[in-house]
Amino acid sequence: QSSVTLFGIIDAALQRGSGSVADRTQLGSGANSSSRLGFRGVEDLGGGMSASFWLEAAVLVDTGAGGPTSTNNQPSGTPATLGGTQGLTFARRSTVSLTSSLGELRLGRDYSAHYYRYIYDPFGNNGVGASQTFLGAPTTGINRVSNQIAYHLPSNLGGIYGLVEYHLGENASNAGATKNDGNGGGVRLGWNGGPFDVSLTQARTSYASTATLGDITSTTIGARYDFSVFSVMGQYVRDKVDTAAAFTGRGGNIAGVWRVGAGEVKAMWSQYGTTAAAQPETKKLSLGYVHNLSKRTAIYGSYARVRNSGGATVALNGSITGANQSSSGVDLGIRHAF
Amino acid sequence: QSSVTLFGIIDAALQRGSGSVADRTQLGSGANSSSRLGFRGVEDLGGGMSASFWLEAAVLVDTGAGGPTSTNNQPSGTPATLGGTQGLTFARRSTVSLTSSLGELRLGRDYSAHYYRYIYDPFGNNGVGASQTFLGAPTTGINRVSNQIAYHLPSNLGGIYGLVEYHLGENASNAGATKNDGNGGGVRLGWNGGPFDVSLTQARTSYASTATLGDITSTTIGARYDFSVFSVMGQYVRDKVDTAAAFTGRGGNIAGVWRVGAGEVKAMWSQYGTTAAAQPETKKLSLGYVHNLSKRTAIYGSYARVRNSGGATVALNGSITGANQSSSGVDLGIRHAF
Amino acid sequence: QSSVTLFGIIDAALQRGSGSVADRTQLGSGANSSSRLGFRGVEDLGGGMSASFWLEAAVLVDTGAGGPTSTNNQPSGTPATLGGTQGLTFARRSTVSLTSSLGELRLGRDYSAHYYRYIYDPFGNNGVGASQTFLGAPTTGINRVSNQIAYHLPSNLGGIYGLVEYHLGENASNAGATKNDGNGGGVRLGWNGGPFDVSLTQARTSYASTATLGDITSTTIGARYDFSVFSVMGQYVRDKVDTAAAFTGRGGNIAGVWRVGAGEVKAMWSQYGTTAAAQPETKKLSLGYVHNLSKRTAIYGSYARVRNSGGATVALNGSITGANQSSSGVDLGIRHAF
Repeated sequence: QSSVTLFGIIDAALQRGSGSVADRTQLGSGANSSSRLGFRGVEDLGGGMSASFWLEAAVLVDTGAGGPTSTNNQPSGTPATLGGTQGLTFARRSTVSLTSSLGELRLGRDYSAHYYRYIYDPFGNNGVGASQTFLGAPTTGINRVSNQIAYHLPSNLGGIYGLVEYHLGENASNAGATKNDGNGGGVRLGWNGGPFDVSLTQARTSYASTATLGDITSTTIGARYDFSVFSVMGQYVRDKVDTAAAFTGRGGNIAGVWRVGAGEVKAMWSQYGTTAAAQPETKKLSLGYVHNLSKRTAIYGSYARVRNSGGATVALNGSITGANQSSSGVDLGIRHAF
Repeated sequence: QSSVTLFGIIDAALQRGSGSVADRTQLGSGANSSSRLGFRGVEDLGGGMSASFWLEAAVLVDTGAGGPTSTNNQPSGTPATLGGTQGLTFARRSTVSLTSSLGELRLGRDYSAHYYRYIYDPFGNNGVGASQTFLGAPTTGINRVSNQIAYHLPSNLGGIYGLVEYHLGENASNAGATKNDGNGGGVRLGWNGGPFDVSLTQARTSYASTATLGDITSTTIGARYDFSVFSVMGQYVRDKVDTAAAFTGRGGNIAGVWRVGAGEVKAMWSQYGTTAAAQPETKKLSLGYVHNLSKRTAIYGSYARVRNSGGATVALNGSITGANQSSSGVDLGIRHAF
Repeated sequence: QSSVTLFGIIDAALQRGSGSVADRTQLGSGANSSSRLGFRGVEDLGGGMSASFWLEAAVLVDTGAGGPTSTNNQPSGTPATLGGTQGLTFARRSTVSLTSSLGELRLGRDYSAHYYRYIYDPFGNNGVGASQTFLGAPTTGINRVSNQIAYHLPSNLGGIYGLVEYHLGENASNAGATKNDGNGGGVRLGWNGGPFDVSLTQARTSYASTATLGDITSTTIGARYDFSVFSVMGQYVRDKVDTAAAFTGRGGNIAGVWRVGAGEVKAMWSQYGTTAAAQPETKKLSLGYVHNLSKRTAIYGSYARVRNSGGATVALNGSITGANQSSSGVDLGIRHAF
């Protein structure tokens, strides 16, 4: 047997959401870090080269279900929700790579460049506190993409990091206006110099323009500075969406993390709004505390509150709220990594 | 990599069922012990505390398919049967725990208290011989529940064991009469003193009353006594079901296990009947022999026969039998644990 | 924990297909060897006996999805395609075995005897180069079967190898004309003497005759001779299909493999045609090169071209071609085993 690493995170939280229409209490999965189960391995090929693979499945710990993937980065690639019958898929990541001192060639399913707005959010886009730049954005279905060919820069460039990725919709060439649907790509470039980190990401995925679909072009710029016991970070994102009634979404967040003994206090302000009719916008305050019981295990609590305007109805933790109403939520959970 | 334990059971049996309408021959999965694949681990946190996780999937060895879970402990949480397209889910168990000398806090999907009627059945509710108190009961969909918060007593209480569990249906608070559907909980308390074991379990899950749904309240009391080469055990179960035409189900079993060298002979009488119109009832005789080839591997054979009355049509191993007719079945299989 | 072996292959390729109607570019999975993830183990029972299990799932590395199985070896056993929601199943193999010097008894899901036409194809029935005897055959849904009971000859018979298998459709005995649908079995017998290998396989699966279904009877004969640096191999297959308009399919391939340093050059001619109306037939030329970077990792490229006649429309790599038109395709990929 070769050296396969089995890894994962199991994270469950009691979640409460309050909205103007309905509240909800639920046991949720991954409110601090997404629950997952994975298999990965690296083989040294000699001469500075290596081959590797990575298979990572979402696991909903509250039910034991898996999560779906997409065959083609298009709505047709993921049929209707399967609820409790959804089995495990390696939708989080499923890749094979060849790596040398020149970088890594990676084939399979992985983050698209649209997703790199999760980096400068101390909640990592998880749980009630997740940045509104993530939750409110039109990139939900393409944060991860199938049929991707990516090149990642090597790690020996003096702090410079980055990638170029291209993903395929795999349509037949006679598909007419939709033949490029689901095709896309992106570029990410950053610099990590000691306490300072900054990066810029540009991504685009194509869809023939309809009432609900259209090219999505995303730009994300973010930075972080690590002081001795606290960090500050922020990002700005813009999504141009070429539906029949084209609109642009803009948002950002600014956040701080304080390390206090075995604990970590997090605070973030985030907002996201679009130029669609009535200009819906949501502003969010997120507060969190994580208490590390070990390197692998923590208990945590989070609180967040959103304020909607322009007709937005964003609600937290499964609650339902009316247009322009507020919603708040609390998470209380355990996260265990292995 | 951390210490993850990969475990499982693969159990396949040739099964034959005979009924008054139709017979059937099939290769079945888990006729001695349910086929499964799991991942679990424990981390010592110091100070008598530990964190742990447990992911356990059903595997149908005859086809390679998985088994479904439920998102909400309600019929809506498990869409239509997927047959050969049903993927693996961790529907048997999917939990994260914190344990100390005061007990264990466990979050996720696990047995509900309704399920503890499997303990005093030497067939472990598996295969053709499974106790009728299990097969005939209206608790099928809630033997395991999602969104559970459970507290398990510690193991240092002089043989006293038990748990309290609460499970959530996760409905919005404006769902009207059905807002508590799928909510429930239970208490289990037992005492294991040397050769003697006795326990009492009480469970309840709520559903707004309709023709097919209604609150289910289950009571199970059971006991076992281990003599040197044989054990006797028995249990009594009662299920109160508040559908529009409310009814009560009552059943029980008494069983013995004889250990003969590397073998084990099992015999059980069980029955279950309800107060629904015509008072359907089924009585069952189960006989089994398990021959252990090692601690991990066994071959086995079982025979069972049911007698229906009051319009009941229970049939064994996929056979079909008419109202008030008998049915019988045989299993012949291999069970291998790893 | 016992000794479980975790194993797999992750194989991804950029694939291009060209046809008279449409071309397609895609990232494909398993173009050199099918991508998979598996768990297997063997327990020594003493006295020359052992118990073992094998669970092997298909993984589509391009999307992370799994592949479906069938519950009953009939069309009803695999509902409609789930696309990106298809979870992992152990549809490639899911078995438990008892083995002694007399052979192996294996229960579960595994190859049917219909599938042994993959042996004498240097492309292993994978990717654009796969033999037309496989791609064109009516055995697609029963190359692997559920509910199988198989006996495999032991490995100590002086080069003679073989198996007998029986698979069950598991229909109720009152299912009338279709009560044997999905039942079947087969025999395989071969001899491997030094550089020479030859085998004969006979398989049959029953279906009540309709416009699209009917008994399928397959015969495969193949042989290989390994010279020092190259091998030649070939096979002939015949499939008799008793649909309402019964027809017979016949095909074969002849192939050579040249080992050149760390590389392997493959060339094959294959064809398959049937006696159905207009006598559709497809002829195929396949060329491939595999460059081994290690025992576990390779990069590869393949090219193939098909020529259709009699109304056949076989097209490669997702392209679409008109009746009696040609199609060609190229694969360029990475294969990594663990």
